[in-house]
Amino acid sequence: MRQFIIHGHAVPPTAEFSLDDLTGAGRLDLLARCVTASFLLSHGIRDDVRTHLVVNDEFTVQFDGSQLRGLHPDERSTAALIRTALEEKAEAIGQIPVETSPGVSLIRRGFAETLADAASSGTVVQLHEDGEPAVDVSVPAEPIFVLSDHRDFTDEEEAVLAEAADHRLRVGPQALHADHTITVVHNWCDTDGFSSY
Amino acid sequence: MRQFIIHGHAVPPTAEFSLDDLTGAGRLDLLARCVTASFLLSHGIRDDVRTHLVVNDEFTVQFDGSQLRGLHPDERSTAALIRTALEEKAEAIGQIPVETSPGVSLIRRGFAETLADAASSGTVVQLHEDGEPAVDVSVPAEPIFVLSDHRDFTDEEEAVLAEAADHRLRVGPQALHADHTITVVHNWCDTDGFSSY
Repeated sequence: MRQFIIHGHAVPPTAEFSLDDLTGAGRLDLLARCVTASFLLSHGIRDDVRTHLVVNDEFTVQFDGSQLRGLHPDERSTAALIRTALEEKAEAIGQIPVETSPGVSLIRRGFAETLADAASSGTVVQLHEDGEPAVDVSVPAEPIFVLSDHRDFTDEEEAVLAEAADHRLRVGPQALHADHTITVVHNWCDTDGFSSY
Repeated sequence: MRQFIIHGHAVPPTAEFSLDDLTGAGRLDLLARCVTASFLLSHGIRDDVRTHLVVNDEFTVQFDGSQLRGLHPDERSTAALIRTALEEKAEAIGQIPVETSPGVSLIRRGFAETLADAASSGTVVQLHEDGEPAVDVSVPAEPIFVLSDHRDFTDEEEAVLAEAADHRLRVGPQALHADHTITVVHNWCDTDGFSSY
């Protein structure tokens, strides 16, 4: 399984935002594109993917490809799925996930816990501009890619991530948006490190 | 310069569509993402890119990276730039482009003419699932990548493209959405064929 953990630092956890202004809602436009980039193929969904969207270091919206229904490519409908999940936050008690739509769950869990939980089942890959070139690294069988949104990770998050990461990976000479980075690492995995087409 | 030609077969050329339903406006959500994927880096714009969005085989909205202002990453604002361009279609007479916002022009020109015009200044690369693996092809100095939207090219368009194309390129074993394909070919170019990071 491929997993993605994306930290949305500025999404209003109250779920009080308009679908007409996703940019103003903590860059939910970008985060919605991260979710769709992690799952969508031209004619279907990547069912062997799990994506964790950490909201405000407080909640995590988890998307499970094997169960996911109703994920469309546009930002607005994906943002609506995220908003629906956040609306159920009163139901997310302790560490018990609440399914808010098919394949989408809300868990009361911040960045460090989400990372620790995922890290137990795969190889943590930090995407970083000072990392090793992707082409020089073998594609792990069960990679867990960790990205931030439009903001950098905080120093505290960086420390947690440095401790957990098995690899630091650079996808190219240009710094890309998080959603574009997800597309590139999928291509890296799909082609087994640009060798199998 | 890198160029992209994307044919949006079903965009209403009347410009009468709502920004709240881009999916219903001939998949303008996808086309807007194609435009942003072709230009946006994490901290800026690719100024050495030109993107041609063919609308309904009748008009072409041309985005010029060296002149472009006000392109934001979200679908909605990019779709608004496209709508603004199409609203000026009465002004687009003959082959004279009309600048509709900084770096965005509308030209009364269909797919074949847009392709022929661009082809005179570079290497035409058709993105195709039966093409050569990207890793086996040298990155052209002045590539022109040609993609369709959610629909396949018509037989007539395929014939025009086959005649013009210098290469047919496959970016991986999975069929990707057009916007994701743009991100992958940028990475191929940025890294000079996955060799330079």
